[in-house]
Amino acid sequence: MITSKSNAWFKRVRNAMREHTDEIVIEGPKPVADAIKAGWKPIVIPEFSPALLKSISDTKTSQGVIALFARPRWTADEVFSRTDSVIVALDAVQDPGNVGTIVRLAAAFDAAGVILLPGCADAFGPKAIRASAGAILSVPVVEMTAEALLARGVPLFAADAKGAAAPPPARRAILAFGSEGRGISDALRNAATPIAIESSGRVESLNVAAAAAILL
Amino acid sequence: MITSKSNAWFKRVRNAMREHTDEIVIEGPKPVADAIKAGWKPIVIPEFSPALLKSISDTKTSQGVIALFARPRWTADEVFSRTDSVIVALDAVQDPGNVGTIVRLAAAFDAAGVILLPGCADAFGPKAIRASAGAILSVPVVEMTAEALLARGVPLFAADAKGAAAPPPARRAILAFGSEGRGISDALRNAATPIAIESSGRVESLNVAAAAAILL
Repeated sequence: MITSKSNAWFKRVRNAMREHTDEIVIEGPKPVADAIKAGWKPIVIPEFSPALLKSISDTKTSQGVIALFARPRWTADEVFSRTDSVIVALDAVQDPGNVGTIVRLAAAFDAAGVILLPGCADAFGPKAIRASAGAILSVPVVEMTAEALLARGVPLFAADAKGAAAPPPARRAILAFGSEGRGISDALRNAATPIAIESSGRVESLNVAAAAAILL
Repeated sequence: MITSKSNAWFKRVRNAMREHTDEIVIEGPKPVADAIKAGWKPIVIPEFSPALLKSISDTKTSQGVIALFARPRWTADEVFSRTDSVIVALDAVQDPGNVGTIVRLAAAFDAAGVILLPGCADAFGPKAIRASAGAILSVPVVEMTAEALLARGVPLFAADAKGAAAPPPARRAILAFGSEGRGISDALRNAATPIAIESSGRVESLNVAAAAAILL
Protein backbone atom coordinates (compact mmCIF):
# COMPACT_ATOMS: atom_id res chain seq x y z
CA MET A 1 0.00 0.00 0.00
CA ILE A 2 1.31 3.40 -0.99
CA THR A 3 1.57 5.82 1.92
CA SER A 4 4.00 8.50 0.73
CA LYS A 5 3.36 11.65 -1.23
CA SER A 6 6.75 11.24 -2.85
CA ASN A 7 5.72 7.93 -4.42
CA ALA A 8 5.74 8.07 -8.23
CA TRP A 9 2.23 6.60 -8.53
CA PHE A 10 0.84 9.21 -6.14
CA LYS A 11 2.50 11.97 -8.13
CA ARG A 12 1.12 10.56 -11.37
CA VAL A 13 -2.47 10.53 -10.05
CA ARG A 14 -2.10 14.00 -8.56
CA ASN A 15 -0.72 15.25 -11.85
CA ALA A 16 -3.65 13.70 -13.73
CA MET A 17 -6.06 15.57 -11.42
CA ARG A 18 -4.24 18.88 -11.75
CA GLU A 19 -3.06 18.88 -15.35
CA HIS A 20 -5.15 16.15 -17.05
CA THR A 21 -2.84 16.27 -20.07
CA ASP A 22 -2.52 12.58 -20.92
CA GLU A 23 -4.37 10.94 -18.05
CA ILE A 24 -7.49 11.90 -16.14
CA VAL A 25 -9.03 10.92 -12.83
CA ILE A 26 -12.67 10.00 -12.27
CA GLU A 27 -13.95 10.01 -8.69
CA GLY A 28 -16.77 8.11 -7.03
CA PRO A 29 -18.09 4.56 -7.29
CA LYS A 30 -20.88 5.33 -9.78
CA PRO A 31 -18.89 7.52 -12.21
CA VAL A 32 -16.05 4.97 -12.20
CA ALA A 33 -18.47 2.07 -12.78
CA ASP A 34 -20.16 4.04 -15.58
CA ALA A 35 -16.81 4.71 -17.25
CA ILE A 36 -15.86 1.04 -17.17
CA LYS A 37 -19.32 0.04 -18.43
CA ALA A 38 -18.89 2.54 -21.29
CA GLY A 39 -15.75 0.69 -22.35
CA TRP A 40 -13.06 2.81 -20.72
CA LYS A 41 -10.13 0.80 -19.41
CA PRO A 42 -8.74 2.01 -16.08
CA ILE A 43 -5.00 2.06 -15.54
CA VAL A 44 -4.17 -0.43 -12.79
CA ILE A 45 -2.45 1.29 -9.88
CA PRO A 46 -1.36 0.09 -6.43
CA GLU A 47 -3.64 0.78 -3.49
CA PHE A 48 -3.29 4.18 -1.77
CA SER A 49 -3.56 4.51 2.00
CA PRO A 50 -6.81 6.17 3.17
CA ALA A 51 -4.86 9.26 4.33
CA LEU A 52 -3.16 9.59 0.95
CA LEU A 53 -6.40 9.13 -0.95
CA LYS A 54 -8.06 11.75 1.21
CA SER A 55 -5.26 14.19 0.52
CA ILE A 56 -5.91 14.26 -3.22
CA SER A 57 -9.59 13.54 -3.64
CA ASP A 58 -12.84 15.29 -2.96
CA THR A 59 -13.75 12.60 -0.45
CA LYS A 60 -17.41 13.60 -0.38
CA THR A 61 -17.64 12.82 -4.09
CA SER A 62 -15.09 10.05 -4.33
CA GLN A 63 -16.27 7.96 -1.38
CA GLY A 64 -12.81 6.44 -1.41
CA VAL A 65 -12.99 5.41 -5.08
CA ILE A 66 -10.85 7.06 -7.73
CA ALA A 67 -9.71 5.67 -11.07
CA LEU A 68 -7.05 6.71 -13.53
CA PHE A 69 -7.77 6.62 -17.27
CA ALA A 70 -5.98 7.65 -20.41
CA ARG A 71 -7.44 10.96 -21.54
CA PRO A 72 -9.85 10.39 -24.43
CA ARG A 73 -8.82 12.08 -27.67
CA TRP A 74 -11.46 12.95 -30.20
CA THR A 75 -10.82 14.51 -33.58
CA ALA A 76 -12.65 17.43 -35.11
CA ASP A 77 -13.57 15.14 -38.02
CA GLU A 78 -15.45 12.86 -35.60
CA VAL A 79 -17.53 15.82 -34.46
CA PHE A 80 -18.12 17.31 -37.91
CA SER A 81 -18.96 13.96 -39.55
CA ARG A 82 -22.38 14.02 -37.85
CA THR A 83 -24.84 16.10 -39.83
CA ASP A 84 -28.04 15.12 -38.01
CA SER A 85 -27.45 17.39 -35.04
CA VAL A 86 -25.83 20.64 -33.94
CA ILE A 87 -22.32 21.26 -32.65
CA VAL A 88 -21.76 23.35 -29.51
CA ALA A 89 -18.80 25.77 -29.49
CA LEU A 90 -17.65 27.47 -26.29
CA ASP A 91 -15.51 30.60 -26.47
CA ALA A 92 -13.51 31.49 -23.35
CA VAL A 93 -15.95 29.81 -20.95
CA GLN A 94 -13.58 29.76 -17.99
CA ASP A 95 -15.68 28.09 -15.31
CA PRO A 96 -15.18 24.30 -15.35
CA GLY A 97 -18.62 23.76 -13.80
CA ASN A 98 -20.23 25.53 -16.76
CA VAL A 99 -18.13 23.55 -19.25
CA GLY A 100 -19.12 20.26 -17.59
CA THR A 101 -22.80 21.26 -17.36
CA ILE A 102 -22.79 22.08 -21.08
CA VAL A 103 -21.17 18.70 -21.91
CA ARG A 104 -24.07 17.14 -19.97
CA LEU A 105 -26.56 19.23 -21.97
CA ALA A 106 -24.83 18.19 -25.21
CA ALA A 107 -25.51 14.56 -24.29
CA ALA A 108 -29.05 15.29 -23.12
CA PHE A 109 -29.96 16.95 -26.41
CA ASP A 110 -27.74 14.74 -28.57
CA ALA A 111 -25.40 17.40 -29.92
CA ALA A 112 -22.61 16.05 -32.15
CA GLY A 113 -19.94 17.35 -29.81
CA VAL A 114 -18.49 20.28 -27.93
CA ILE A 115 -15.74 22.46 -29.40
CA LEU A 116 -13.59 24.30 -26.85
CA LEU A 117 -12.15 27.47 -28.33
CA PRO A 118 -9.19 29.18 -26.64
CA GLY A 119 -9.67 30.36 -23.06
CA CYS A 120 -12.09 27.61 -21.97
CA ALA A 121 -11.67 25.50 -18.87
CA ASP A 122 -10.53 21.96 -19.62
CA ALA A 123 -13.47 19.56 -19.82
CA PHE A 124 -11.34 16.82 -18.25
CA GLY A 125 -10.57 18.50 -14.92
CA PRO A 126 -12.23 17.08 -11.79
CA LYS A 127 -14.84 19.84 -11.45
CA ALA A 128 -15.90 19.70 -15.11
CA ILE A 129 -16.05 15.90 -15.04
CA ARG A 130 -18.29 16.04 -11.95
CA ALA A 131 -20.58 18.64 -13.53
CA SER A 132 -20.88 16.51 -16.66
CA ALA A 133 -22.49 13.75 -14.57
CA GLY A 134 -21.02 11.02 -16.74
CA ALA A 135 -21.61 12.74 -20.07
CA ILE A 136 -17.88 13.33 -20.52
CA LEU A 137 -17.73 9.59 -21.27
CA SER A 138 -19.78 9.84 -24.45
CA VAL A 139 -19.63 13.39 -25.80
CA PRO A 140 -16.78 14.18 -28.21
CA VAL A 141 -14.92 17.21 -26.87
CA VAL A 142 -12.30 18.84 -29.11
CA GLU A 143 -10.11 21.91 -28.76
CA MET A 144 -9.90 24.13 -31.84
CA THR A 145 -9.01 27.67 -32.82
CA ALA A 146 -11.69 30.05 -34.08
CA GLU A 147 -9.99 30.02 -37.50
CA ALA A 148 -10.14 26.21 -37.76
CA LEU A 149 -13.77 26.25 -36.67
CA LEU A 150 -14.75 28.86 -39.25
CA ALA A 151 -12.81 27.01 -41.96
CA ARG A 152 -15.28 24.11 -41.63
CA GLY A 153 -17.91 26.27 -43.34
CA VAL A 154 -20.76 25.11 -41.10
CA PRO A 155 -23.43 27.78 -40.47
CA LEU A 156 -22.63 29.52 -37.19
CA PHE A 157 -25.16 30.88 -34.70
CA ALA A 158 -24.22 32.68 -31.50
CA ALA A 159 -26.16 33.38 -28.33
CA ASP A 160 -26.14 37.18 -28.38
CA ALA A 161 -28.66 39.58 -26.88
CA LYS A 162 -28.36 41.76 -29.99
CA GLY A 163 -29.89 39.11 -32.25
CA ALA A 164 -33.48 38.18 -33.01
CA ALA A 165 -35.23 35.74 -30.67
CA ALA A 166 -35.55 32.98 -33.26
CA PRO A 167 -35.00 29.27 -32.68
CA PRO A 168 -31.67 27.97 -34.00
CA PRO A 169 -31.55 25.13 -36.57
CA ALA A 170 -31.58 21.59 -35.20
CA ARG A 171 -28.83 20.28 -37.52
CA ARG A 172 -25.86 21.30 -39.68
CA ALA A 173 -25.17 24.27 -37.43
CA ILE A 174 -22.73 25.42 -34.79
CA LEU A 175 -24.22 27.05 -31.67
CA ALA A 176 -21.60 29.28 -30.07
CA PHE A 177 -21.62 30.60 -26.51
CA GLY A 178 -19.16 33.13 -25.11
CA SER A 179 -18.10 34.10 -21.64
CA GLU A 180 -20.74 35.87 -19.55
CA GLY A 181 -18.78 39.06 -19.25
CA ARG A 182 -17.50 39.52 -22.79
CA GLY A 183 -19.63 37.35 -25.06
CA ILE A 184 -18.04 35.71 -28.09
CA SER A 185 -14.85 36.98 -29.71
CA ASP A 186 -14.99 39.36 -32.67
CA ALA A 187 -13.74 36.68 -35.09
CA LEU A 188 -16.79 34.55 -34.32
CA ARG A 189 -19.23 37.43 -33.98
CA ASN A 190 -18.43 38.69 -37.47
CA ALA A 191 -19.24 35.27 -38.91
CA ALA A 192 -22.25 34.36 -36.78
CA THR A 193 -25.98 34.89 -36.92
CA PRO A 194 -26.86 36.25 -33.47
CA ILE A 195 -29.74 34.59 -31.60
CA ALA A 196 -31.25 36.26 -28.56
CA ILE A 197 -33.09 34.54 -25.74
CA GLU A 198 -36.21 36.51 -24.95
CA SER A 199 -36.19 37.62 -21.33
CA SER A 200 -37.59 40.22 -18.97
CA GLY A 201 -34.60 42.54 -19.08
CA ARG A 202 -34.47 42.33 -15.27
CA VAL A 203 -31.01 40.71 -15.44
CA GLU A 204 -28.03 41.69 -17.58
CA SER A 205 -27.39 38.19 -18.86
CA LEU A 206 -28.09 34.53 -18.34
CA ASN A 207 -25.64 32.02 -16.98
CA VAL A 208 -23.93 30.47 -20.05
CA ALA A 209 -25.12 26.95 -19.20
CA ALA A 210 -28.70 28.23 -18.82
CA ALA A 211 -28.44 29.86 -22.25
CA ALA A 212 -27.12 26.59 -23.71
CA ALA A 213 -29.95 24.63 -22.05
CA ILE A 214 -32.53 26.89 -23.65
CA LEU A 215 -31.05 26.97 -27.18
CA LEU A 216 -30.25 23.24 -27.24
CA MET B 1 -9.67 50.02 12.30
CA ILE B 2 -10.73 46.61 13.51
CA THR B 3 -7.92 44.09 13.52
CA SER B 4 -9.09 41.36 15.89
CA LYS B 5 -11.19 38.30 15.22
CA SER B 6 -12.64 38.64 18.71
CA ASN B 7 -14.13 42.05 17.89
CA ALA B 8 -17.93 42.03 18.08
CA TRP B 9 -18.34 43.64 14.65
CA PHE B 10 -16.12 41.03 13.05
CA LYS B 11 -18.14 38.26 14.70
CA ARG B 12 -21.39 39.85 13.52
CA VAL B 13 -20.22 39.98 9.88
CA ARG B 14 -18.85 36.45 10.03
CA ASN B 15 -22.12 35.26 11.50
CA ALA B 16 -24.07 36.99 8.72
CA MET B 17 -21.94 35.13 6.15
CA ARG B 18 -22.31 31.76 7.85
CA GLU B 19 -25.85 31.84 9.19
CA HIS B 20 -27.55 34.72 7.29
CA THR B 21 -30.45 34.61 9.74
CA ASP B 22 -31.15 38.31 10.25
CA GLU B 23 -28.32 39.92 8.33
CA ILE B 24 -26.58 39.03 5.08
CA VAL B 25 -23.32 39.95 3.42
CA ILE B 26 -22.91 41.00 -0.20
CA GLU B 27 -19.38 40.91 -1.64
CA GLY B 28 -17.76 42.85 -4.46
CA PRO B 29 -17.96 46.45 -5.64
CA LYS B 30 -20.61 45.91 -8.34
CA PRO B 31 -23.02 43.72 -6.32
CA VAL B 32 -22.78 46.14 -3.39
CA ALA B 33 -23.37 49.16 -5.67
CA ASP B 34 -26.31 47.34 -7.29
CA ALA B 35 -27.84 46.62 -3.89
CA ILE B 36 -27.59 50.24 -2.80
CA LYS B 37 -28.98 51.42 -6.15
CA ALA B 38 -31.89 48.99 -5.68
CA GLY B 39 -32.74 50.74 -2.43
CA TRP B 40 -31.07 48.46 0.09
CA LYS B 41 -29.56 50.32 3.04
CA PRO B 42 -26.21 48.95 4.21
CA ILE B 43 -25.50 48.72 7.93
CA VAL B 44 -22.64 51.08 8.72
CA ILE B 45 -19.71 49.20 10.27
CA PRO B 46 -16.17 50.24 11.24
CA GLU B 47 -13.35 49.53 8.78
CA PHE B 48 -11.75 46.07 8.92
CA SER B 49 -8.02 45.61 8.47
CA PRO B 50 -7.06 44.04 5.10
CA ALA B 51 -5.95 40.84 6.86
CA LEU B 52 -9.24 40.56 8.71
CA LEU B 53 -11.26 41.22 5.57
CA LYS B 54 -9.28 38.60 3.70
CA SER B 55 -9.93 36.06 6.45
CA ILE B 56 -13.70 36.14 5.99
CA SER B 57 -14.28 37.04 2.36
CA ASP B 58 -13.82 35.37 -0.97
CA THR B 59 -11.26 38.00 -1.93
CA LYS B 60 -11.41 37.15 -5.60
CA THR B 61 -15.08 38.08 -5.64
CA SER B 62 -15.10 40.75 -2.98
CA GLN B 63 -12.11 42.78 -4.22
CA GLY B 64 -11.92 44.15 -0.71
CA VAL B 65 -15.55 45.34 -0.68
CA ILE B 66 -18.18 43.71 1.52
CA ALA B 67 -21.39 45.15 2.86
CA LEU B 68 -23.76 44.09 5.61
CA PHE B 69 -27.52 44.35 5.06
CA ALA B 70 -30.62 43.36 6.97
CA ARG B 71 -31.92 40.14 5.43
CA PRO B 72 -34.89 40.93 3.18
CA ARG B 73 -38.13 39.30 4.30
CA TRP B 74 -40.82 38.65 1.76
CA THR B 75 -44.21 37.19 2.51
CA ALA B 76 -45.97 34.40 0.66
CA ASP B 77 -48.80 36.84 -0.03
CA GLU B 78 -46.40 39.09 -1.93
CA VAL B 79 -45.49 36.18 -4.19
CA PHE B 80 -49.01 34.85 -4.65
CA SER B 81 -50.56 38.28 -5.28
CA ARG B 82 -49.04 38.29 -8.78
CA THR B 83 -51.21 36.40 -11.21
CA ASP B 84 -49.53 37.43 -14.47
CA SER B 85 -46.62 35.02 -14.13
CA VAL B 86 -45.57 31.68 -12.68
CA ILE B 87 -44.13 30.87 -9.26
CA VAL B 88 -41.06 28.65 -8.95
CA ALA B 89 -40.97 26.12 -6.08
CA LEU B 90 -37.80 24.26 -5.17
CA ASP B 91 -37.99 21.06 -3.14
CA ALA B 92 -34.80 19.98 -1.35
CA VAL B 93 -32.46 21.65 -3.84
CA GLN B 94 -29.39 21.52 -1.63
CA ASP B 95 -26.77 23.15 -3.79
CA PRO B 96 -26.62 26.92 -3.15
CA GLY B 97 -25.22 27.53 -6.64
CA ASN B 98 -28.33 25.94 -8.17
CA VAL B 99 -30.64 27.93 -5.86
CA GLY B 100 -28.90 31.20 -6.81
CA THR B 101 -28.90 30.34 -10.52
CA ILE B 102 -32.64 29.65 -10.35
CA VAL B 103 -33.25 32.99 -8.57
CA ARG B 104 -31.39 34.59 -11.50
CA LEU B 105 -33.60 32.67 -13.97
CA ALA B 106 -36.72 33.75 -12.04
CA ALA B 107 -35.68 37.38 -12.62
CA ALA B 108 -34.73 36.75 -16.25
CA PHE B 109 -38.11 35.23 -17.04
CA ASP B 110 -40.07 37.46 -14.63
CA ALA B 111 -41.41 34.74 -12.34
CA ALA B 112 -43.44 36.06 -9.39
CA GLY B 113 -41.01 34.58 -6.89
CA VAL B 114 -39.18 31.52 -5.65
CA ILE B 115 -40.60 29.29 -2.91
CA LEU B 116 -38.02 27.29 -0.98
CA LEU B 117 -39.55 24.12 0.43
CA PRO B 118 -37.77 22.23 3.23
CA GLY B 119 -34.28 20.93 2.50
CA CYS B 120 -33.20 23.73 0.16
CA ALA B 121 -30.00 25.72 0.50
CA ASP B 122 -30.57 29.23 1.81
CA ALA B 123 -30.81 31.76 -1.03
CA PHE B 124 -29.04 34.34 1.14
CA GLY B 125 -25.75 32.51 1.67
CA PRO B 126 -22.64 33.88 -0.10
CA LYS B 127 -22.55 31.22 -2.83
CA ALA B 128 -26.24 31.54 -3.70
CA ILE B 129 -26.04 35.34 -3.69
CA ARG B 130 -23.08 35.17 -6.10
CA ALA B 131 -24.87 32.72 -8.41
CA SER B 132 -27.93 34.97 -8.47
CA ALA B 133 -25.80 37.70 -10.09
CA GLY B 134 -27.78 40.46 -8.39
CA ALA B 135 -31.21 38.89 -8.89
CA ILE B 136 -31.49 38.17 -5.16
CA LEU B 137 -32.08 41.92 -4.82
CA SER B 138 -35.36 41.87 -6.71
CA VAL B 139 -36.84 38.37 -6.63
CA PRO B 140 -39.15 37.57 -3.70
CA VAL B 141 -37.85 34.40 -2.03
CA VAL B 142 -40.00 32.76 0.64
CA GLU B 143 -39.66 29.59 2.70
CA MET B 144 -42.81 27.48 2.97
CA THR B 145 -43.88 23.95 3.79
CA ALA B 146 -45.37 21.73 1.08
CA GLU B 147 -48.68 21.83 2.97
CA ALA B 148 -48.80 25.64 2.98
CA LEU B 149 -47.91 25.70 -0.72
CA LEU B 150 -50.63 23.23 -1.65
CA ALA B 151 -53.16 25.12 0.50
CA ARG B 152 -52.84 28.08 -1.87
CA GLY B 153 -54.76 26.10 -4.49
CA VAL B 154 -52.64 27.29 -7.42
CA PRO B 155 -52.25 24.70 -10.22
CA LEU B 156 -49.02 22.81 -9.64
CA PHE B 157 -46.70 21.46 -12.36
CA ALA B 158 -43.54 19.51 -11.65
CA ALA B 159 -40.50 18.77 -13.78
CA ASP B 160 -40.70 14.98 -13.92
CA ALA B 161 -39.44 12.63 -16.61
CA LYS B 162 -42.61 10.55 -16.21
CA GLY B 163 -44.85 13.33 -17.53
CA ALA B 164 -45.75 14.45 -21.03
CA ALA B 165 -43.41 16.86 -22.81
CA ALA B 166 -45.90 19.72 -22.87
CA PRO B 167 -45.12 23.38 -22.22
CA PRO B 168 -46.23 24.58 -18.77
CA PRO B 169 -48.67 27.52 -18.42
CA ALA B 170 -47.16 31.00 -18.39
CA ARG B 171 -49.29 32.29 -15.48
CA ARG B 172 -51.34 31.22 -12.43
CA ALA B 173 -49.16 28.16 -11.98
CA ILE B 174 -46.46 26.83 -9.72
CA LEU B 175 -43.48 25.14 -11.43
CA ALA B 176 -41.83 22.75 -8.98
CA PHE B 177 -38.34 21.30 -9.25
CA GLY B 178 -36.91 18.62 -6.95
CA SER B 179 -33.43 17.48 -6.12
CA GLU B 180 -31.57 15.74 -8.94
CA GLY B 181 -31.30 12.48 -7.13
CA ARG B 182 -34.76 12.08 -5.68
CA GLY B 183 -37.05 14.43 -7.58
CA ILE B 184 -39.93 16.11 -5.77
CA SER B 185 -41.44 14.78 -2.56
CA ASP B 186 -44.51 12.53 -2.63
CA ALA B 187 -46.74 15.25 -1.15
CA LEU B 188 -46.05 17.46 -4.16
CA ARG B 189 -45.93 14.67 -6.72
CA ASN B 190 -49.43 13.51 -5.79
CA ALA B 191 -50.79 17.01 -6.40
CA ALA B 192 -48.75 17.96 -9.47
CA THR B 193 -49.12 17.59 -13.21
CA PRO B 194 -45.77 16.13 -14.32
CA ILE B 195 -44.00 17.82 -17.22
CA ALA B 196 -41.12 16.11 -18.97
CA ILE B 197 -38.33 17.79 -20.90
CA GLU B 198 -37.79 15.93 -24.14
CA SER B 199 -34.23 14.66 -24.34
CA SER B 200 -32.04 12.04 -25.97
CA GLY B 201 -32.08 9.61 -23.06
CA ARG B 202 -28.28 9.68 -23.12
CA VAL B 203 -28.21 11.16 -19.61
CA GLU B 204 -30.23 10.15 -16.57
CA SER B 205 -31.32 13.67 -15.71
CA LEU B 206 -30.68 17.33 -16.30
CA ASN B 207 -29.11 19.68 -13.82
CA VAL B 208 -32.01 21.27 -11.89
CA ALA B 209 -31.06 24.79 -12.98
CA ALA B 210 -30.93 23.65 -16.63
CA ALA B 211 -34.42 22.14 -16.25
CA ALA B 212 -35.67 25.41 -14.73
CA ALA B 213 -34.08 27.41 -17.56
CA ILE B 214 -35.92 25.32 -20.14
CA LEU B 215 -39.35 25.31 -18.47
CA LEU B 216 -39.22 29.00 -17.52
